[in-house]
Amino acid sequence: MDSIKQIPGGVCAPKGFKANGVHCGLAKSLEKKDIALIYSDVPCNCAATYTTNKVKAAPLAVTKEHLANGKAQAIICNSGNANACNADGYKVATRMTFLAASHLGLSQDDVLVASTGVIGQPLNIHPIDACMESLVGGLNTNGSDLACQAIMTTDTMKKEISVAFDIGGVECKMGAIAKGSGMIHPNMGTMLGFITTDAAISTDMLNMALKMVVKDTFNMVSVDGDTSTNDMAILMANGLANNPPIDGQSPDFDRFIKVLTYVCIYLARVMARDGEGATKLLECSVTGAVTEDTARVLAKAVITSSLFKAAMFGADANWGRVLCAMGYSGAEFDPLKVEVRFASQDDGIIVCHDGVGVPFSEEKAKKILSEEEIEIHIKLNQGSGEAVAWGCDLTYDYVKINGDYRS
Amino acid sequence: MDSIKQIPGGVCAPKGFKANGVHCGLAKSLEKKDIALIYSDVPCNCAATYTTNKVKAAPLAVTKEHLANGKAQAIICNSGNANACNADGYKVATRMTFLAASHLGLSQDDVLVASTGVIGQPLNIHPIDACMESLVGGLNTNGSDLACQAIMTTDTMKKEISVAFDIGGVECKMGAIAKGSGMIHPNMGTMLGFITTDAAISTDMLNMALKMVVKDTFNMVSVDGDTSTNDMAILMANGLANNPPIDGQSPDFDRFIKVLTYVCIYLARVMARDGEGATKLLECSVTGAVTEDTARVLAKAVITSSLFKAAMFGADANWGRVLCAMGYSGAEFDPLKVEVRFASQDDGIIVCHDGVGVPFSEEKAKKILSEEEIEIHIKLNQGSGEAVAWGCDLTYDYVKINGDYRS
Repeated sequence: MDSIKQIPGGVCAPKGFKANGVHCGLAKSLEKKDIALIYSDVPCNCAATYTTNKVKAAPLAVTKEHLANGKAQAIICNSGNANACNADGYKVATRMTFLAASHLGLSQDDVLVASTGVIGQPLNIHPIDACMESLVGGLNTNGSDLACQAIMTTDTMKKEISVAFDIGGVECKMGAIAKGSGMIHPNMGTMLGFITTDAAISTDMLNMALKMVVKDTFNMVSVDGDTSTNDMAILMANGLANNPPIDGQSPDFDRFIKVLTYVCIYLARVMARDGEGATKLLECSVTGAVTEDTARVLAKAVITSSLFKAAMFGADANWGRVLCAMGYSGAEFDPLKVEVRFASQDDGIIVCHDGVGVPFSEEKAKKILSEEEIEIHIKLNQGSGEAVAWGCDLTYDYVKINGDYRS
Repeated sequence: MDSIKQIPGGVCAPKGFKANGVHCGLAKSLEKKDIALIYSDVPCNCAATYTTNKVKAAPLAVTKEHLANGKAQAIICNSGNANACNADGYKVATRMTFLAASHLGLSQDDVLVASTGVIGQPLNIHPIDACMESLVGGLNTNGSDLACQAIMTTDTMKKEISVAFDIGGVECKMGAIAKGSGMIHPNMGTMLGFITTDAAISTDMLNMALKMVVKDTFNMVSVDGDTSTNDMAILMANGLANNPPIDGQSPDFDRFIKVLTYVCIYLARVMARDGEGATKLLECSVTGAVTEDTARVLAKAVITSSLFKAAMFGADANWGRVLCAMGYSGAEFDPLKVEVRFASQDDGIIVCHDGVGVPFSEEKAKKILSEEEIEIHIKLNQGSGEAVAWGCDLTYDYVKINGDYRS
């Protein structure tokens, strides 16, 4: 996609967006920023997707209400506490939007709210209240990095991207920050993903775009099979690029979808690569499926299998676990037509053909599987459905991180 | 169940059963027995359940064919090789039954066959052929232990039990051996479970009994969420106890169900406790669900969650992960009515009430969660459906074992 150009700036790359992140006291370390604010100079059309987990964190309910009119102008988000399963969760989340709104001079329902961290511990509003002046006062057009740091929990890599593109001859920009490392198996929204753009596009088309793109990007990532209570992706468009507005199906809309896909795939891959304890990114592509849904289910089953993930950690070409995972996924396919190929950027090796093993060089396989990015190519030879899923290996560090997350 | 008495003998405890296990050469270590034989002096009525994995190992197809008439007299089973995804798998599995049948003087279709081990590596029939004389020659009524050892792979604990019980005033016996440690998330059959009894019971009632009991025992175990290609449970009844035959619904049948449940729960618990790398047995009971199925799905979601399993390894009372797992399970329940209680044999502590956290002593929780058997009691307060599931913690050793299983 040579006409999508990566640029610096993150969520502040598009015109009219500012951001900030500070330490308010929810995180133990004074070094760790724990509250973020993203703000647009003008009201934005806005779309969001939310976790499908039946247990939903309070901020999701508040954000959904505030988005009923499809408009928003700011997002406030804390890390260190999920504000889920708390008796006063809704009240506290609402209060967060009130505090941000009054400091920003906005209507309360133009502020969206998100949280990430431990479930079931009351979220103390006081440190948030106390930091509001410095959080709002420090908003600036170089603040994406600070906001990005502030929403991280066990993340070890920053998830930030921004791009420039063209709609109807007018340059537009899109930026995004995301967080996500554990409890990641989005099933509709994502962990947290905040995407800004200065493109002019209607709320309806934003909603359609986000829904379409999330399905094949964030929802195809799994770190541990656990779908969080707090997953949410928000897409804000303030229109300041002054492109011909996108308000229906059109080549411009297709173009917007391509850009959004590019941004979300980037974030999906970094999230998978930064899976808790991960040493490797796994990219599983399934082709030749009877339907696209079949391909999705199969690709996701493979990168979700604990046994397969552990084998990848050990650089063990145990392809039987690929077939095993496909077999219990519930998807329809003919095991006797399956081809499995392991590949790295430089090299590849077929390990299974027509559903049975083929002789291969263990040494070569070991070399391929020792790379940091491993591709698993599965050909089903039954149709034209295809999908890609991203995951990571299962390591000692995943156990370590999650054996004692709260302390 | 004081009228079910544990006795020694394993699968040879019931009258007329013999067993043996030897090293034929499939396992690398000469110490490791790798082929087992179970034999009844007389033909048995016989029932079996099989994996629901779409990729099924060849021995399952052969066993299913040989069981078409509901009769069998012997089971041959190797470890070290799953005989799955091999071009000649069916031929080799059939050959195994032929070899056993000819040495035992049986019809080939009275011999059942099972395999467990690595997927996708051709199974060499020659070492099996070569050991047949010693395997058959060594059959004896103390051989259950040898057979039990021979079907183990990464298992570290023997899974063997035998009991005496009473049907219509006549003493009957039931014995069983099982294997299962990794790739365990049975969804109909089990890993491998071989159950013998000298009770007289028709094939139809055996089938019904096995189907009913497996649902609430083996199928409620999960070590890693991976349903194997080789799962199989076989139940053989040779009738030598001479009890009034069970051939329909009756108090005797109910009694038989109770005994079979007792035996299978014992094996289910040992399998979970001996999950690859496990240091703890987790028993999750859900009560008050709208339906039994709801309770099953919820209990299983909790003990399958990687995040929750890692928390249990770390003795971290992170109950939010319990609610999170319940929430994404797809089961219907009201999050605001949920109570969660962690307990050991001696003590218990409520950590969540009406869906929100309650203050609790972290110290006491740590003590409870440091025990080797941890109970998670979930009350839904919505109905009378209940279920129990068994699992284990997720540890460094699980990763170690599965990072390099084939070498």
